[in-house]
Amino acid sequence: MNRPYNFYAGPAILPFEVMKEIQDELLNFKNTGLSIMEISHRSKEFDEVVDETISLVKELLNIPEDYSVLFIQGGASFQFAMIPLNFLKGKKADYINTGSWATKAIKEAKKLGEVNIAATSEDKNFNYIPEKFNFSNDAEYVHITANETINGTQFKNFPDTNGKPLIADMSSEIMSRVIDVSKFSLIYAGAQKNISIAGVTLVILKNSMLEKANNDLPTMLKYSTFVEKKSMFNTPPVFAIYVMNKVLKWLKNQGGVSKIEKINNEKAKILYNVIDSYDLYIGTAEKNSRSNMNVTFRLKNEELEKKFIDEATKNGFIGVKGHRSVGGCRASIYNAMSLEGVKALAEFMKDFANKNN
Amino acid sequence: MNRPYNFYAGPAILPFEVMKEIQDELLNFKNTGLSIMEISHRSKEFDEVVDETISLVKELLNIPEDYSVLFIQGGASFQFAMIPLNFLKGKKADYINTGSWATKAIKEAKKLGEVNIAATSEDKNFNYIPEKFNFSNDAEYVHITANETINGTQFKNFPDTNGKPLIADMSSEIMSRVIDVSKFSLIYAGAQKNISIAGVTLVILKNSMLEKANNDLPTMLKYSTFVEKKSMFNTPPVFAIYVMNKVLKWLKNQGGVSKIEKINNEKAKILYNVIDSYDLYIGTAEKNSRSNMNVTFRLKNEELEKKFIDEATKNGFIGVKGHRSVGGCRASIYNAMSLEGVKALAEFMKDFANKNN
Repeated sequence: MNRPYNFYAGPAILPFEVMKEIQDELLNFKNTGLSIMEISHRSKEFDEVVDETISLVKELLNIPEDYSVLFIQGGASFQFAMIPLNFLKGKKADYINTGSWATKAIKEAKKLGEVNIAATSEDKNFNYIPEKFNFSNDAEYVHITANETINGTQFKNFPDTNGKPLIADMSSEIMSRVIDVSKFSLIYAGAQKNISIAGVTLVILKNSMLEKANNDLPTMLKYSTFVEKKSMFNTPPVFAIYVMNKVLKWLKNQGGVSKIEKINNEKAKILYNVIDSYDLYIGTAEKNSRSNMNVTFRLKNEELEKKFIDEATKNGFIGVKGHRSVGGCRASIYNAMSLEGVKALAEFMKDFANKNN
Repeated sequence: MNRPYNFYAGPAILPFEVMKEIQDELLNFKNTGLSIMEISHRSKEFDEVVDETISLVKELLNIPEDYSVLFIQGGASFQFAMIPLNFLKGKKADYINTGSWATKAIKEAKKLGEVNIAATSEDKNFNYIPEKFNFSNDAEYVHITANETINGTQFKNFPDTNGKPLIADMSSEIMSRVIDVSKFSLIYAGAQKNISIAGVTLVILKNSMLEKANNDLPTMLKYSTFVEKKSMFNTPPVFAIYVMNKVLKWLKNQGGVSKIEKINNEKAKILYNVIDSYDLYIGTAEKNSRSNMNVTFRLKNEELEKKFIDEATKNGFIGVKGHRSVGGCRASIYNAMSLEGVKALAEFMKDFANKNN
C-alpha cells in the first residue's frame, strides 16, 4: 500500500529510512544474534549506543562542556513535577503561560511552591507569544514552553532572564532549529515528536544547577541520580534510546540542525501561504507567533472542518484533526515530514478550497 | 548466524515468534500504512491495543473485578518511591528484606516514613526466604520482593499479613506462575523480564487502595491519575505496551500461566539437578528458597568461574555472568527461554564439569 502522509502531533512521523533500518536489524543487533529488544542494558553493545547518542545530542546542538545529557522516563508531564521538586523547593519561580502545555507545567509547579506568571497570552486564547515579561527578583528559575502544539505558537526569540536560570520545554521542537544552549539551564523534550518514539525524555542540564538542587527526594526523582549514573541507575528505556540514536544519525546525515531548520522554515511557509491565500482557512495563531512545527487553522464552520478532515484522511493525509480541547485542524510538520509531503498537503488544501468556496 | 541462547537477567529474552511478528508489521501497523512507532496514542488503533492488553493481563492472571491494570514508566525503581508516596504518608510500613531489590525498596520507603523490617535474610547473604515475620500492628502495608534476581531466591508461599495490604514486586516473575491476585493489594512488575521490553511497568492495583491514598502529590506520581485516565494522562510508552500485547498473546497461545508454570518448574529442576550433581557447582540459594527464574551458582574458585563464563559465551550461552554486586554465575530462565535452551545449557554444564574436575 501507499504510505500515507503522517501529520500526527505526537507520537509522530519517523524518517522512513530509520524505520527500515530498525526493521532490518530487529532480530540481530550488531551481530549479537539477539534483538536490541532483549539485550542487557549493561551489555557493551548497548553502552556504546548510550555513549554515541549522548555525543550526537551534544554535537547536533553544539552543547557546551558543562552540560549533561540525560534520558528520563515519564514524558514532559513528569518533568513538570521533577523540575519544581528539584529546583523550586517551596520558593518562587516565574512561568510564562503560552498555552495548554505551559498551563499544565504551571499547575504542577503550584503544588510545590509559588508561581509568578511573568506573562500570559490567555487573554486571546493563547494565540500569540507575549513579548513583555514581569519577572520577579527572587525567582529560582524562569520556565517557558518553546512551542505549543495545541495552540500552534512558538517563541521566535527567547526571553532575556537577566541571569536567572531559563528552563524550556522543547518537546515539540527539539532539534528543529538552531538554539544557543548556553542560554538555558535546563531543556527537556519528550522524544516522540522530533527525535524518537514515546517512552524517553531528553534532558539537557547545566551541571551547576545540581549545586542548588533539593537532595531530599526519592532517588528516581533527582536529576543528580541520572547525572551520576549516566541515566542508568536502573534499566533505561533501551529501545527508545536506540531509536533516538538512529534518528539523530539520520539528522546528522541530512546536514544537521541548521540544514533541517531551513527545510522546516520552507515547509511552514508553504502551508501558511495557503492559509493566508484562501478565505476558507483561518490561521489560529498571530502571524509573528506562528509555529513552524504545528500549523493550526480553522475553516469557516465546523461542518466544513469535518468535511476537510474526512477528505484529507481519505486522500492519505493522516492526523490533521486539531487537538480535542480546541477543535479545528492541525498539520504537524516535524523534521521527518518531507517537503514533498507538505507540498502534497498544500495542493490538497488549495483544491479543497477551490471546491468549497 | 545461529541465534544464541539468551540468559540475560533483564532486559531479557523475548519469544522469537513475537519478535518476528513485530518485525513483519513494523512498517505497517493494522493496515494503517504507518508504523506502531509513529501513530498517535489517541488513535483508535492504539486504543484497541491498550484495551486488549488490559484484558489479557486480567484474563491470564484471573484478576478480580475490583482491580485496575496500569502501565507506568520509570521501572520498579520508580515504584519503590511511588508506593510510599501514595500509601505510606509518613506513617509505618512493614518490609521483608530478601535481597538487593528489597533493600533498594526499603531505602526509598525510609525517606518517606517509618519502616519496620518484618524479616530479613541478610544474616546469610540473602540466600533464603524467611518464614517467620514480625509484623507491626500499625503498618499501612506489607511489602515483599517475590523473586530476587541477584540472590536467586523466590517466595514459594506468600506471607499471611492478617488483613494488611500486601504489596509485591514481581518484576522478575510476573506471569511465570499462577498466583492468587486477591491476596495482593498492589503488584508491580518492570516488564523487561517476562512480559515486554524495558520502558513500561505493569501495576495491578486493588481499587480500594485509592481511598486511603495521598492526594497531595504531583499528577504523575499519583496512582489515581493512571486509574482515571486509563494510563493515558500523557503519552504512554506506546511501543512497550504494544510489545506486551504481543507477548501476552503468545503466552495465552502457549496455554497460559498454569501451563508455563509447569514448564518453568521443569526448566529450573534441570539446572538445579546439574548443580546438585557436580561438586564443581555450588548453588547459592538454600534449596527450598531457590528461584525458578534466576538460577544462581558459584564454581569452586573465581578462575573457574571466569573460564566457565568465557566458554559458555563462546558456545552461544549469553548472559550467564552473575550480577556485578555478587559475582558468580547466573542463568535467567524466564518464560521465553525454551526447555530446549535449558537442556542445552545443562549439557554444556555437565560437559564443563567433567572436563574441569
